[in-house]
Amino acid sequence: MSECIFCSIIARKTPGRIVFEDNLVVAIEDIRPQAPVHLLVMPRAHVDSLNDLKPEDEPLLGRLFIVAARLARERGLDTQGYRTVINNGAWAGQSVAHLHVHVMGGRVFHWPPG
Amino acid sequence: MSECIFCSIIARKTPGRIVFEDNLVVAIEDIRPQAPVHLLVMPRAHVDSLNDLKPEDEPLLGRLFIVAARLARERGLDTQGYRTVINNGAWAGQSVAHLHVHVMGGRVFHWPPG
Repeated sequence: MSECIFCSIIARKTPGRIVFEDNLVVAIEDIRPQAPVHLLVMPRAHVDSLNDLKPEDEPLLGRLFIVAARLARERGLDTQGYRTVINNGAWAGQSVAHLHVHVMGGRVFHWPPG
Repeated sequence: MSECIFCSIIARKTPGRIVFEDNLVVAIEDIRPQAPVHLLVMPRAHVDSLNDLKPEDEPLLGRLFIVAARLARERGLDTQGYRTVINNGAWAGQSVAHLHVHVMGGRVFHWPPG
């Protein structure tokens, strides 16, 4: 676990811009933002990716998106719109093996999504 | 509700390639696939977007992603990877106002995601 950068940020061992946290979920600013607003919402407990979740994790997964929507609303993204993205594995470009939801807004997005 | 194309597909009033359904969730093939595998996982009950969900919807939201991960696994996407995307609103390019998760795999994805 000590090698996971997100676990280290959550544990306050590595600096990170934490913008929200509750008992299950932590949100930080992406250090390489790809939009005017670019947040990462992740489980507090380490999970590699969606592949490692089980049906009993549905409430946790749901919490990630309720928090994503809440943060989007607080930043005024809900009127024009925002995109959420989860990258799972190498071909998707997952750069940190700790499940995280990208919440991106403040500009127009194109299709396909990468 | 009769004007929502996804509700119409779910109700079997409009043809659509349904690949999975349970009590909460339905998955179909995207008619304009942007990757070798491109599925849409949606709530059976109409919801416009993430903006319309409340904390009590966490289990439903979680189910969307448990199903997304299951379908990805069944199609062999979990080894190389896959991307999930939710577009909320105009700037994100949401084309049907019925919440849906894009599950895309079978190729390498780029960054930023659109």
